[in-house]
Amino acid sequence: MDEFDLIAEKFLPLTDGRHEAFGLKDDGALVPRSNGEDLVTSLDSLIEGVHFLAADPPETIGEKLLRVNLSDLAAMGARPEAYLLAVSLGQDRLKGSGYLPWMDGIVAGLRSAQLCFGLSLLGGDTTAGPGPTSFSVTIFGRVPKGRALRRDHADAGDDLYVSGSLGDGALGLAILQDRLSGLTPRDTATLVRAYRLPEPRLELGQALLGRDFSRAAMDLSDGLMGDVAHLARASGIKAEIFADQVPLSDPVRSVLTRQPEFADFPFGAGDDYELLFAAGPDKREKIADLSVELGVKVCRVGRLMAGQGVRLLDAGGREKAIQSASWRHF
Amino acid sequence: MDEFDLIAEKFLPLTDGRHEAFGLKDDGALVPRSNGEDLVTSLDSLIEGVHFLAADPPETIGEKLLRVNLSDLAAMGARPEAYLLAVSLGQDRLKGSGYLPWMDGIVAGLRSAQLCFGLSLLGGDTTAGPGPTSFSVTIFGRVPKGRALRRDHADAGDDLYVSGSLGDGALGLAILQDRLSGLTPRDTATLVRAYRLPEPRLELGQALLGRDFSRAAMDLSDGLMGDVAHLARASGIKAEIFADQVPLSDPVRSVLTRQPEFADFPFGAGDDYELLFAAGPDKREKIADLSVELGVKVCRVGRLMAGQGVRLLDAGGREKAIQSASWRHF
Repeated sequence: MDEFDLIAEKFLPLTDGRHEAFGLKDDGALVPRSNGEDLVTSLDSLIEGVHFLAADPPETIGEKLLRVNLSDLAAMGARPEAYLLAVSLGQDRLKGSGYLPWMDGIVAGLRSAQLCFGLSLLGGDTTAGPGPTSFSVTIFGRVPKGRALRRDHADAGDDLYVSGSLGDGALGLAILQDRLSGLTPRDTATLVRAYRLPEPRLELGQALLGRDFSRAAMDLSDGLMGDVAHLARASGIKAEIFADQVPLSDPVRSVLTRQPEFADFPFGAGDDYELLFAAGPDKREKIADLSVELGVKVCRVGRLMAGQGVRLLDAGGREKAIQSASWRHF
Repeated sequence: MDEFDLIAEKFLPLTDGRHEAFGLKDDGALVPRSNGEDLVTSLDSLIEGVHFLAADPPETIGEKLLRVNLSDLAAMGARPEAYLLAVSLGQDRLKGSGYLPWMDGIVAGLRSAQLCFGLSLLGGDTTAGPGPTSFSVTIFGRVPKGRALRRDHADAGDDLYVSGSLGDGALGLAILQDRLSGLTPRDTATLVRAYRLPEPRLELGQALLGRDFSRAAMDLSDGLMGDVAHLARASGIKAEIFADQVPLSDPVRSVLTRQPEFADFPFGAGDDYELLFAAGPDKREKIADLSVELGVKVCRVGRLMAGQGVRLLDAGGREKAIQSASWRHF
């Protein structure tokens, strides 16, 4: 039983069928509001050695804490509002003399993200534990009532788009884990930065909702093919992804040319935090214009149709196999 | 620097002075609502080996997850509404064959608390990590607008009350850690149950707010004297606690008679999750009646006055010293 089964089988009954829980299949949940807005909330934990590395600069850890949570808000088209933060400091971290400067760095990173994205801390919890240091963030955002972008609102006939480029964060992690080397200093810096400081696509998500270009979106955190499968399944339709249309940055393209063992990373390795969304074919020109307006690359990478499942197609329309479809914690 | 300094010095600036954060000194924070109610929220993490024990029955762990968070709602006079749950499964737990039945037990405990206290799961996060298993719960509740019970609303002249009895949970933990033995099976069961299944005083908190008996409350999670100090400091006044008025259960009294090394537990050992609240002397009779009405023991244990600091007084009015004033994680 993997985590998705666990959620569906063990936790889903606990929602009592409340529609605000979105069947535990979306990036967040609503707390109903009455003044024309819904309050969106999401809770994510980040654990040392899993979601960030002990050697990462603490400023980037603090920023990442909020950025990955803000990515959930972006995926719902929400405007950020506030967050709660739980910190559990590991004994190793507490025993070391460097824990206070490290915590200062975390706080500086949080502050930086707060200024950049417009939200404030509201409360939380501080404890110590025997394991690695971990953080939990509950984030709050607002959307016009009943209009949150949802995984289950995609339609057959829609195009599928992704923002930015894919595989950068996963290759950055591979560099930090000494599984990838030999890149130029500039490419190394670009990929490591993508891992440490993912870009939440808030403006894009809000514009897609506000201009009614899309009703279905999610953020890519577990790998393109696995996440597309989630969206297609939630919407009850089938997805085809055009492998040669998946956007790659120059550093990623350079790595893939020299080291084919990383060829699947843009399709299944996770850590992208880009937006995946569906839109009708009549919106193609408007979405291209929006991409220019916001300065955010947006690529059409696939299409949705009646049926079920997900296929990755090469330039000739033949199905392409990849090794790892999706990141799983267990 | 301890956790309270850390919060005040490092995290407080991040609230941008928003009043909804209550200066990070209360049991929760508000998300403003417009329809006559405030939405109260609180985030707490529970870590294996710290807040619960690996050998605890998983049903009681699941119940405790919600009960300790519900205790925060009780302390604000709120009605429970919903919660978010983040689970991080430790590798040891995952490797063992028993992890699925264990998770079933957790879920059964959550379900039991949901039925008992009237709330539903809304969303969350599931991951695995290298350390111990941990949980984070963000809880939501409602209070009439602007009326949440607050730590900083106690007045000089008020009496101080506590619900239930103190020290039971901490002695229960001592039994489970083999630091205390020789009790009758019945006393052992009572104390262990108090540790594993603390009772959130929701009805009491809601009645204190609803009938305007009190404007100041908090839950006792870190030990009476330390928590009274928090309340007194937040309200800018001084507190005196009458040691012989602090309510003790029969099992606790029995342990303290035989083993004086545990004498300070009711005053400083934590794990009580009882309600501490302030009320004017004109409310004494009404609070006694409320105690009978709800079937919840409520004892007047002290008083508040101009000044600062906290004193524990014996029956003769002499100051009494205790060793450990408050539980601290680091």
